[in-house]
Amino acid sequence: MTAPAKADRLFARKLDLSGAVDMTHGSGGKAMAQLVRELFAAAFANPLLDQGNDQAAFDVPGGRMVMTTDGFVVSPLFFPGGDIGSLAVHGTVNDIAMAGAVPLHLTAAFILEEGFPLADLKRLVDSMAAAARDAGVAIVSGDTKVVERGKGDGVFITTTGIGMVPPGIAPSGDRARPGDAILVSGTMGDHGVAIMSTRDNLGFDTAILSDSAALHGLVAAMVAEVPDLHVLRDPTRGGLATTLNEIAHQSGVGMRLSEAAIPLRAEVAAACELLGLDPLYAANEGKLIAICADADADRLLTVMRAHPLGRDAARIGAVVEDSHRFVQMETRFGGRRIVDWLTGEQLPRIC
Amino acid sequence: MTAPAKADRLFARKLDLSGAVDMTHGSGGKAMAQLVRELFAAAFANPLLDQGNDQAAFDVPGGRMVMTTDGFVVSPLFFPGGDIGSLAVHGTVNDIAMAGAVPLHLTAAFILEEGFPLADLKRLVDSMAAAARDAGVAIVSGDTKVVERGKGDGVFITTTGIGMVPPGIAPSGDRARPGDAILVSGTMGDHGVAIMSTRDNLGFDTAILSDSAALHGLVAAMVAEVPDLHVLRDPTRGGLATTLNEIAHQSGVGMRLSEAAIPLRAEVAAACELLGLDPLYAANEGKLIAICADADADRLLTVMRAHPLGRDAARIGAVVEDSHRFVQMETRFGGRRIVDWLTGEQLPRIC
Repeated sequence: MTAPAKADRLFARKLDLSGAVDMTHGSGGKAMAQLVRELFAAAFANPLLDQGNDQAAFDVPGGRMVMTTDGFVVSPLFFPGGDIGSLAVHGTVNDIAMAGAVPLHLTAAFILEEGFPLADLKRLVDSMAAAARDAGVAIVSGDTKVVERGKGDGVFITTTGIGMVPPGIAPSGDRARPGDAILVSGTMGDHGVAIMSTRDNLGFDTAILSDSAALHGLVAAMVAEVPDLHVLRDPTRGGLATTLNEIAHQSGVGMRLSEAAIPLRAEVAAACELLGLDPLYAANEGKLIAICADADADRLLTVMRAHPLGRDAARIGAVVEDSHRFVQMETRFGGRRIVDWLTGEQLPRIC
Repeated sequence: MTAPAKADRLFARKLDLSGAVDMTHGSGGKAMAQLVRELFAAAFANPLLDQGNDQAAFDVPGGRMVMTTDGFVVSPLFFPGGDIGSLAVHGTVNDIAMAGAVPLHLTAAFILEEGFPLADLKRLVDSMAAAARDAGVAIVSGDTKVVERGKGDGVFITTTGIGMVPPGIAPSGDRARPGDAILVSGTMGDHGVAIMSTRDNLGFDTAILSDSAALHGLVAAMVAEVPDLHVLRDPTRGGLATTLNEIAHQSGVGMRLSEAAIPLRAEVAAACELLGLDPLYAANEGKLIAICADADADRLLTVMRAHPLGRDAARIGAVVEDSHRFVQMETRFGGRRIVDWLTGEQLPRIC
């Protein structure tokens, strides 16, 4: 629940409480940010939530802990490169990792729809168990609820995780500083396009697999080399563009990107062109954004590229001073354009 | 996710994987226990999950922590005495408290259905925030997803909580011993009957309110007086009968109850009689079962009755040796009957 802490003019109008929930409220874009800020964060306000990160970090006797939760409603439940079970593990492990933390334990709550085949449930649960084993975390507690046919959609899974932050590590969305380097760990948009390829009404085939993966191993290598990582965040819903805008917003800075430097699979670029979509807004489930001092960037990049999940890591731009908090991009053709928040919705139920 | 650890003959047949999820899998009864054991617990097996309690307890640097999660799909969302927002706080706070622990933080994940009125969402969220404030816990992180109309049912909420266990406190479902006293903190079945009274097709009115409440304050007073509490558990789905069977099962013991000693509101008894239901299977959301050494029972009862949420506390029976792990009850008429697990389903979507 990203809740930008500072008042600003991001939203021209207040949330209209005479209205209803619509799909844009789940898109990861501007409408969701407004719902979260004006309804959830306003009611629940407390110093930990107000950190505005995808996880809360707090001191417990013996160290610093993080806690994070994520609901998964991805459709379809099985997609190229993964399924809702493995995704539910990876997503929460990654939100823990983005605090620089070592994942400790997960919980899982299932909401099942009456009539869902038990064999499919077993497939999902086995995949989830395998993902947890691979990530070295245990699912230590859980819950099961069942709703009537037509009141759910097969399976929804909410995972919650806790992790311990090594001493001296404190990445946070409000720590980007002018002059910092912006890095990504690999190609953008793979998960979004993989999901898109399964949707009936889009009807195209690609060989693109979701990048769904647990990033805590990569992060451990990164913080070992550069403990003073300023920002770590995984660009899931809303993609790279929206996540960078969130960070720019939280830190009160601008950003300059170079389009040519952003890693992109040719198949993803082609699929996006076909559909008239921008890959910078397509979701990722196994990639991260890292922001660090310029002097640390080359060392960090070397460590990232040495890890299987960071092979295609690249420096894609720099943080700049900008009271408007704009993310701008130098295009391949030498022009410059503003990369705005996702408004409306690119693709529903991507995660 | 209660996962009885020991092999036994509770289930005559194995789960049929050619079948589908049905409403009994969410009832809190025998079908759910089987699904949890043969599908979830089998896949996720680890020492913490295998504790078979409603929360996992583990050591962290500096102390012992518990973690627990619960999905809430109660229908209707607003009911006499509460709503899904406050219930989602109470339910998880209580699962933490049932480890004798002090709640620390909660997270909340929302799955919203397209078209749900924002004004109703605000009411629920405000109620949730108030319940958290009253319970002295903060909601430190969250998530929001939206599903299309007809793929959800208004609002589902999953809350997850962590808490710290005071040194020397270790209640667990496998610690009931022959000779122990069985206590409950108050009247049984209030929540179940309150929900039932709202269901259109049942069409009766009662003045019964849900007992939804956070029990950690009561528990703190109890463990201060009797640190060696053997078992604490809140009888939610499946009610007193099913929860006692779970404990009997986990501890490998039998139980003897006295029907006349079980606190029951006259209105609840009347409503259950009208509907042909047994109040011992009706859900509670603000009551607990405590099992302790017989020598500690009177002191414990005194402390419970001194607390506003334990005013009607009563000793309802004793733990006995029984290789069949039967829960038996002496009826008001002097007979004796077996109080079995809930089979099938008493009432769907009670929490």
